[in-house]
Amino acid sequence: MKKLAKEKALLKKLGNKIRELRASVGLSQEELAEKVGIHRTYIGSVERGERNVSIINMFYIARSLNSSLSELFESINEQ
Amino acid sequence: MKKLAKEKALLKKLGNKIRELRASVGLSQEELAEKVGIHRTYIGSVERGERNVSIINMFYIARSLNSSLSELFESINEQ
Repeated sequence: MKKLAKEKALLKKLGNKIRELRASVGLSQEELAEKVGIHRTYIGSVERGERNVSIINMFYIARSLNSSLSELFESINEQ
Repeated sequence: MKKLAKEKALLKKLGNKIRELRASVGLSQEELAEKVGIHRTYIGSVERGERNVSIINMFYIARSLNSSLSELFESINEQ
Protein backbone atom coordinates (compact mmCIF):
# COMPACT_ATOMS: atom_id res chain seq x y z
CA MET A 1 0.00 0.00 0.00
CA LYS A 2 1.32 3.43 -0.88
CA LYS A 3 2.15 5.77 1.96
CA LEU A 4 -0.69 8.16 1.27
CA ALA A 5 -3.26 5.37 1.01
CA LYS A 6 -2.06 3.97 4.32
CA GLU A 7 -2.34 7.38 5.97
CA LYS A 8 -5.86 7.83 4.64
CA ALA A 9 -6.82 4.37 5.88
CA LEU A 10 -5.45 5.17 9.33
CA LEU A 11 -7.35 8.46 9.61
CA LYS A 12 -10.51 6.78 8.31
CA LYS A 13 -10.29 4.05 10.95
CA LEU A 14 -9.76 6.63 13.62
CA GLY A 15 -12.71 8.66 12.35
CA ASN A 16 -14.93 5.59 12.40
CA LYS A 17 -13.86 4.82 15.95
CA ILE A 18 -14.70 8.36 17.04
CA ARG A 19 -18.11 8.19 15.35
CA GLU A 20 -18.75 4.85 17.08
CA LEU A 21 -17.77 6.18 20.51
CA ARG A 22 -19.80 9.35 19.95
CA ALA A 23 -22.87 7.25 19.14
CA SER A 24 -22.29 5.05 22.18
CA VAL A 25 -22.35 8.04 24.52
CA GLY A 26 -25.32 9.53 22.68
CA LEU A 27 -23.79 12.83 21.57
CA SER A 28 -24.50 14.62 18.30
CA GLN A 29 -21.56 16.05 16.34
CA GLU A 30 -22.68 19.46 17.52
CA GLU A 31 -22.76 18.42 21.18
CA LEU A 32 -19.35 16.78 20.97
CA ALA A 33 -17.92 19.84 19.23
CA GLU A 34 -19.27 22.05 22.00
CA LYS A 35 -17.70 19.86 24.71
CA VAL A 36 -14.35 19.85 22.93
CA GLY A 37 -14.54 23.56 22.15
CA ILE A 38 -14.20 23.25 18.40
CA HIS A 39 -16.52 23.74 15.42
CA ARG A 40 -19.06 21.07 14.46
CA THR A 41 -17.76 20.85 10.91
CA TYR A 42 -14.33 19.99 12.34
CA ILE A 43 -15.78 16.90 14.07
CA GLY A 44 -17.48 15.94 10.82
CA SER A 45 -14.22 16.09 8.89
CA VAL A 46 -12.39 14.14 11.62
CA GLU A 47 -15.00 11.40 11.46
CA ARG A 48 -14.66 11.23 7.70
CA GLY A 49 -10.90 10.80 8.13
CA GLU A 50 -10.13 14.06 6.38
CA ARG A 51 -8.01 15.60 9.13
CA ASN A 52 -4.57 14.79 10.43
CA VAL A 53 -5.55 15.83 13.96
CA SER A 54 -2.95 16.87 16.52
CA ILE A 55 -2.38 14.94 19.73
CA ILE A 56 -3.80 17.73 21.88
CA ASN A 57 -7.05 17.96 19.92
CA MET A 58 -7.32 14.18 19.89
CA PHE A 59 -6.85 14.16 23.65
CA TYR A 60 -9.78 16.57 24.14
CA ILE A 61 -11.95 14.57 21.74
CA ALA A 62 -11.16 11.32 23.59
CA ARG A 63 -11.85 12.94 26.96
CA SER A 64 -15.17 14.38 25.78
CA LEU A 65 -16.17 10.85 24.76
CA ASN A 66 -15.32 9.50 28.22
CA SER A 67 -12.52 7.65 26.49
CA SER A 68 -8.73 7.87 26.34
CA LEU A 69 -6.10 8.21 23.63
CA SER A 70 -5.06 4.66 24.31
CA GLU A 71 -8.60 3.32 23.81
CA LEU A 72 -9.05 5.45 20.71
CA PHE A 73 -6.00 3.90 19.11
CA GLU A 74 -6.65 0.32 20.14
CA SER A 75 -8.46 -0.23 16.85
CA ILE A 76 -5.56 1.23 14.87
CA ASN A 77 -2.95 -1.43 14.47
CA GLU A 78 -1.80 -0.77 10.92
CA GLN A 79 1.76 -1.66 10.20
CA MET B 1 -4.55 22.37 36.54
CA LYS B 2 -4.88 25.00 33.82
CA LYS B 3 -5.53 23.82 30.30
CA LEU B 4 -2.14 24.83 28.98
CA ALA B 5 -0.29 23.18 31.86
CA LYS B 6 -2.24 19.98 31.25
CA GLU B 7 -1.38 20.04 27.57
CA LYS B 8 2.28 20.55 28.33
CA ALA B 9 2.21 17.68 30.83
CA LEU B 10 0.60 15.39 28.25
CA LEU B 11 3.18 16.19 25.57
CA LYS B 12 5.99 15.79 28.10
CA LYS B 13 4.75 12.34 29.13
CA LEU B 14 4.48 11.34 25.52
CA GLY B 15 7.98 12.63 24.82
CA ASN B 16 9.37 10.67 27.77
CA LYS B 17 7.65 7.53 26.52
CA ILE B 18 9.16 7.99 23.06
CA ARG B 19 12.63 8.54 24.52
CA GLU B 20 12.20 5.42 26.64
CA LEU B 21 11.08 3.29 23.68
CA ARG B 22 13.87 4.70 21.52
CA ALA B 23 16.43 3.73 24.15
CA SER B 24 14.93 0.26 24.48
CA VAL B 25 15.36 -0.42 20.76
CA GLY B 26 18.83 1.13 20.81
CA LEU B 27 18.31 3.92 18.30
CA SER B 28 19.88 7.37 18.44
CA GLN B 29 17.68 10.40 17.76
CA GLU B 30 19.39 10.64 14.40
CA GLU B 31 18.71 7.01 13.54
CA LEU B 32 15.07 7.27 14.56
CA ALA B 33 14.67 10.50 12.57
CA GLU B 34 16.10 8.77 9.51
CA LYS B 35 13.70 5.83 9.85
CA VAL B 36 10.73 8.17 10.25
CA GLY B 37 11.91 10.45 7.46
CA ILE B 38 12.05 13.63 9.51
CA HIS B 39 14.81 15.84 10.89
CA ARG B 40 16.76 14.88 13.99
CA THR B 41 15.96 18.14 15.75
CA TYR B 42 12.25 17.34 15.30
CA ILE B 43 12.65 14.11 17.31
CA GLY B 44 14.52 16.08 19.97
CA SER B 45 11.70 18.57 20.32
CA VAL B 46 9.08 15.80 20.40
CA GLU B 47 10.97 14.05 23.22
CA ARG B 48 11.12 17.32 25.15
CA GLY B 49 7.36 17.67 24.79
CA GLU B 50 7.66 20.80 22.71
CA ARG B 51 5.60 19.65 19.75
CA ASN B 52 1.92 18.98 19.32
CA VAL B 53 2.60 16.20 16.84
CA SER B 54 -0.02 15.08 14.33
CA ILE B 55 -1.47 11.58 14.33
CA ILE B 56 0.24 10.64 11.08
CA ASN B 57 3.70 11.65 12.30
CA MET B 58 3.05 9.91 15.60
CA PHE B 59 2.06 6.79 13.72
CA TYR B 60 5.38 6.74 11.84
CA ILE B 61 7.33 7.41 15.04
CA ALA B 62 5.52 4.52 16.80
CA ARG B 63 6.09 2.19 13.88
CA SER B 64 9.79 3.06 13.67
CA LEU B 65 10.06 2.12 17.35
CA ASN B 66 8.42 -1.28 16.71
CA SER B 67 5.53 0.07 18.76
CA SER B 68 1.96 1.20 18.09
CA LEU B 69 -0.09 4.32 18.73
CA SER B 70 -2.04 2.39 21.32
CA GLU B 71 1.11 1.35 23.22
CA LEU B 72 2.50 4.86 22.96
CA PHE B 73 -0.57 6.29 24.66
CA GLU B 74 -0.96 3.63 27.32
CA SER B 75 1.10 5.75 29.66
CA ILE B 76 -1.01 8.83 28.97
CA ASN B 77 -4.10 8.60 31.10
CA GLU B 78 -4.54 12.23 32.05
CA GLN B 79 -8.09 13.36 32.64
